[in-house]
Amino acid sequence: MDISAVNALPFEDFVDIFGNVVEKCPLVSAAVWTRRPFGSLTDLEAAINQFIDALPESGKEGILRCHPDLAGRDLRRGALTRESREEQARAGMDALRPDEASRVARLNEEYKRRFGFPFVVCARASDKASVLRELSERCASERAAERARGIEEVKKICRLRLQGLVLPDNKL
Amino acid sequence: MDISAVNALPFEDFVDIFGNVVEKCPLVSAAVWTRRPFGSLTDLEAAINQFIDALPESGKEGILRCHPDLAGRDLRRGALTRESREEQARAGMDALRPDEASRVARLNEEYKRRFGFPFVVCARASDKASVLRELSERCASERAAERARGIEEVKKICRLRLQGLVLPDNKL
Repeated sequence: MDISAVNALPFEDFVDIFGNVVEKCPLVSAAVWTRRPFGSLTDLEAAINQFIDALPESGKEGILRCHPDLAGRDLRRGALTRESREEQARAGMDALRPDEASRVARLNEEYKRRFGFPFVVCARASDKASVLRELSERCASERAAERARGIEEVKKICRLRLQGLVLPDNKL
Repeated sequence: MDISAVNALPFEDFVDIFGNVVEKCPLVSAAVWTRRPFGSLTDLEAAINQFIDALPESGKEGILRCHPDLAGRDLRRGALTRESREEQARAGMDALRPDEASRVARLNEEYKRRFGFPFVVCARASDKASVLRELSERCASERAAERARGIEEVKKICRLRLQGLVLPDNKL
């Protein structure tokens, strides 16, 4: 789909298609539909990022809290969204060794207890070793820094999901 | 569940339980978890309403766009959330006569074309005749007024959904 096809979508179809570019937050794309027409994919991405940036800090934490744990409960239950399942699988999160799995579970809990939101990372842009190292390092960070860092990861995830849905600007 | 049980919930459980008090917008309750502990159900409801009120106008429209049409596509497909299905059924939206069904479909389309978001009404607080009359009347309104009116209806729906989940303050 190119950007002019995106601009022609009624909001129902827009929300159906783009509703999960920010995990479980269709509110974000539904809000951004107001800003159409978009000049390019970059434009659509910028509108989403601006909407996120304008949320109060609690709203940013809310976005993070809509994300599943890496290699966590939703993966084990088969309850991940399609996008998350594919991204976690690509980073090897569905095939951890037992020692890695219990380390991740322990660090996820530590992270959530410390910050009140889950560890969010763009797994698709990473591999298992880096994800595990980053989880361990970020557990030692501060809440405001982690909120900002998590939101940056949300935006990276969003960019990759958008690129899977809309033709890049230079292909127009 | 009483309010102290609500306050004791980890965010994952809070979002599981309250994630749909605003239809398909778990972001809202996930954000409001930051504000715990809540002194009462009224307090929790007020925190949700304040979060909604603080959103930019596009965000309010985004909330409306996450709502299904009354007696629309999602009802026919069996794709409504449990809460919406029960509320629409209670107002008789799942048992319209053919002439009523085509009138509602026509008015829903007119409303969405005019305003860029769907007609939202607290169906549970109403009956079939009132809902149909209101849909017809509100089609003639203005966009800013309908956005505000739709958000008031979202808050009524939220209040009733909350009351189904948390013991009222006077039962504590």
